[in-house]
Amino acid sequence: MAKRAGKLTYKSSGVDVSANDVMVDKIGAALRRTYDPRVISRHGGFAGLMRLDYHERLLKRCYREPVLVAGADGVGSKLLFGIQHQRIASLGIDLVAMSVNDILTVGAEPLMFLDYVACHKLKPAEIAEIVTGVSTGCVEAGCALLGGETAEMPAMYSPSHFDLAGFCVGVVERDRIIDGDDVEPGDVVIGLASSGIHSNGYSLVHAAIERLGKRKQLPVDLGEPLEDALLRPTRIYVQPVLKLLRSYRRKKIVRAMAHITGGGIAGNLPRVLPDGCAAHIHRGAWTPPPVFRLIQALGVDESEMYDVFNMGIGFILVVRPAFANAVIERLNSAGETAFRIGTIRKGKRRVVWR
Amino acid sequence: MAKRAGKLTYKSSGVDVSANDVMVDKIGAALRRTYDPRVISRHGGFAGLMRLDYHERLLKRCYREPVLVAGADGVGSKLLFGIQHQRIASLGIDLVAMSVNDILTVGAEPLMFLDYVACHKLKPAEIAEIVTGVSTGCVEAGCALLGGETAEMPAMYSPSHFDLAGFCVGVVERDRIIDGDDVEPGDVVIGLASSGIHSNGYSLVHAAIERLGKRKQLPVDLGEPLEDALLRPTRIYVQPVLKLLRSYRRKKIVRAMAHITGGGIAGNLPRVLPDGCAAHIHRGAWTPPPVFRLIQALGVDESEMYDVFNMGIGFILVVRPAFANAVIERLNSAGETAFRIGTIRKGKRRVVWR
Repeated sequence: MAKRAGKLTYKSSGVDVSANDVMVDKIGAALRRTYDPRVISRHGGFAGLMRLDYHERLLKRCYREPVLVAGADGVGSKLLFGIQHQRIASLGIDLVAMSVNDILTVGAEPLMFLDYVACHKLKPAEIAEIVTGVSTGCVEAGCALLGGETAEMPAMYSPSHFDLAGFCVGVVERDRIIDGDDVEPGDVVIGLASSGIHSNGYSLVHAAIERLGKRKQLPVDLGEPLEDALLRPTRIYVQPVLKLLRSYRRKKIVRAMAHITGGGIAGNLPRVLPDGCAAHIHRGAWTPPPVFRLIQALGVDESEMYDVFNMGIGFILVVRPAFANAVIERLNSAGETAFRIGTIRKGKRRVVWR
Repeated sequence: MAKRAGKLTYKSSGVDVSANDVMVDKIGAALRRTYDPRVISRHGGFAGLMRLDYHERLLKRCYREPVLVAGADGVGSKLLFGIQHQRIASLGIDLVAMSVNDILTVGAEPLMFLDYVACHKLKPAEIAEIVTGVSTGCVEAGCALLGGETAEMPAMYSPSHFDLAGFCVGVVERDRIIDGDDVEPGDVVIGLASSGIHSNGYSLVHAAIERLGKRKQLPVDLGEPLEDALLRPTRIYVQPVLKLLRSYRRKKIVRAMAHITGGGIAGNLPRVLPDGCAAHIHRGAWTPPPVFRLIQALGVDESEMYDVFNMGIGFILVVRPAFANAVIERLNSAGETAFRIGTIRKGKRRVVWR
């Protein structure tokens, strides 16, 4: 595990060493529950170590030509909602989700995660809660929380504020990389249901929610408290998607994958399409969760909604048409809600709404 | 390359997409100059990809049992000095140095680096300057700047402020991991000169410098402007140390290594010592740079100075006594300034000052 904080640990300028020690103890368990036999535990060391392969005969899972895949992300303005409603543990899940879903798009198995927490002043219980949330996300994504850094910067952050950054590294067999190059007209676009807004568009969410003012009656019935809808953690698609990819020995059943973040489907799906391929998407193929209808009802144009939010689709797979039904079935039986939302056609590299 | 920013890219809530595009173009060159043949370039993709090995015959550099080594860090309060003096490019070097020197301690070759920049509002020129600094550090450390994330959070950061986090992954052959377990009494402690304060202790630096008030005459002659001394980037020890390790086919010449960060030599060297081994360090073996004498002269106890700062030693190697002179010679001829600063003796796992 990388050393947590301790980099500015001198009381004379206001940094409390013992508070840090308490926190380090508290998060130890959070880290350890994410370890698998590949983690080489070295308490107090300068860096986190992880073998790329198991070398125990029973566990052997070797990569012939391993390619490392890395992603970095934060949770953006969702942080401020979480802080405001004192629901900071779930922000750790969001943090993990943002990076692991990104590296999943090439077919990579997440191996390790590291976090950076920067705050005004260490509150051990708060940091422990955040890191526990991060470790919950890591368990769900099947990766090791290998370390992190906690920084106190009183001059940078307000007393109640903190920022989070997350870094993930995974591995994929070189000849199994999914890069979208083989996508061709006729391929089927499959969408996986999001858990809600996920971790993008919260500046717009904030602007919309402010219009509610002191109204207690929401213009759209969410069927749950507003803050539950706004702060539900981002869905992590790693386990069901990796299970799907492993179930097909023949490669290239799944030809492209996209994580639907800021910019929505139209901003993200074309990133993995080759030239000459447009994605025709049928909005009627699924029903956006009520939280999006609420935000729209507060004065956001529908086209803007689709340009900013995932609108209920958090992850997309482009698959060979002959396998589309089987893929949908497999994903559904792995606990996802999968929709056939469109088709690839000849055209400019973009989304065409239907 | 991981997608830069773009996660909150909607103008309606004040996020400027075109400014972001300009920045993305500007930093493209900064990233590309760090690439080696192992990087798989996928413009616009969701994640950065890097082969663990060259497979071109001429370049082949394989790992039999690769262990991945990861570290995360920030630059702490040095950021505020850099922002104040408008020297933000060198902060990128500090950011890289903090992580790569950490993973170097186990003998790892840094492979990739990712950064997280969070700010009030994107200033494309500023972000480009920061990332160019990060790429300069990556070139020096011989690792690829594989991606990053830029986040705009107006409600979190003051207009002039930004925060930086960095994440590094390297690789080491499993049976060449340097973990300190074999350190034994009689081993020699070799220190490598720091470039100055590096990136720790800046809250104390700030408190000390404030005592200068409006005095123009410093109590200690630095031989250079104060801000040069305070903002010189952290030394990156990767290339000379890796060259040293590769020059010895026999392993275990170098038995432990420590990166001297917050907590100084006494706070960091014991992290890699086994039980029953104390490091006896002779302060007279080297002369701390004048910037430390200045801070001390402004009212910090000498013992506090050694408990907080590197005091002129940025990286430490513990080596077998028979090889100590040869190691010092090799490091000096690789451009380092190496000192024999102490010896390992039987005792409690700590530093004993001589």
